[in-house]
Amino acid sequence: MEKTIFEKIISREISAHIVYEDEHTIAFLDINPSIKGHTLVVPKKPIKDITECDEETAVQLMKTLIKISRAVKKGCSAPAVNIFNNSGAEAGQVVFHLHFHIIPRYAREEFGHLPHTTYANNDEAEKFRESIKKSIE
Amino acid sequence: MEKTIFEKIISREISAHIVYEDEHTIAFLDINPSIKGHTLVVPKKPIKDITECDEETAVQLMKTLIKISRAVKKGCSAPAVNIFNNSGAEAGQVVFHLHFHIIPRYAREEFGHLPHTTYANNDEAEKFRESIKKSIE
Repeated sequence: MEKTIFEKIISREISAHIVYEDEHTIAFLDINPSIKGHTLVVPKKPIKDITECDEETAVQLMKTLIKISRAVKKGCSAPAVNIFNNSGAEAGQVVFHLHFHIIPRYAREEFGHLPHTTYANNDEAEKFRESIKKSIE
Repeated sequence: MEKTIFEKIISREISAHIVYEDEHTIAFLDINPSIKGHTLVVPKKPIKDITECDEETAVQLMKTLIKISRAVKKGCSAPAVNIFNNSGAEAGQVVFHLHFHIIPRYAREEFGHLPHTTYANNDEAEKFRESIKKSIE
């Protein structure tokens, strides 16, 4: 089976704005953010979706999810975060390697149905990466 | 501090369509479902949101989340599920007791921005509850 883009990020075949990495998980900026600072938390093991996730991987993923949720909130000075996961094409999943989205939120009103924005340039994305990375406790 | 509606469901002060319960977590139908079968997974401990969740509770919550995701998919004959969590009022959180939503999905198109539906009556909700409960492995 062909590698997904996330496997290529994990193996460093393609670059990403990585904010965190450990033995089991990795977290990096979504390059097409809903809101700037939008971060993905991914298990290194190529698991398709949440319903196919083994318990050990899930536990590691949850630990990273909490850690990075706090860091996104602090690093983006956001009062709140949304977390979501699309498991299956009918749920909007596009990359078939399990991932959780963490989206910083500033005001309830600004979030329509899957808005999208883009980083002005690589430097802007790097600033978000640095700020989130520095906020990991 | 006044009890949230979820604490009252946990203590059986108010009723709910409970699909699963163990020492640390409980899962029941969202009474205002986005799509019928929409289920909430909740830790029994009153934790405000994901960023305030301790690791042990998070691990228990993740185990239940996977178990119930599979059951919602199977019990609703849905090919996919969305999972989401709103942490903070600015992210749309309404009940300030940590919870994950699991929403069965049938086709990408039918899901707009937070649609809502209602069960025709208590019997219909009970049918969904029974079907999801029976699908827990």
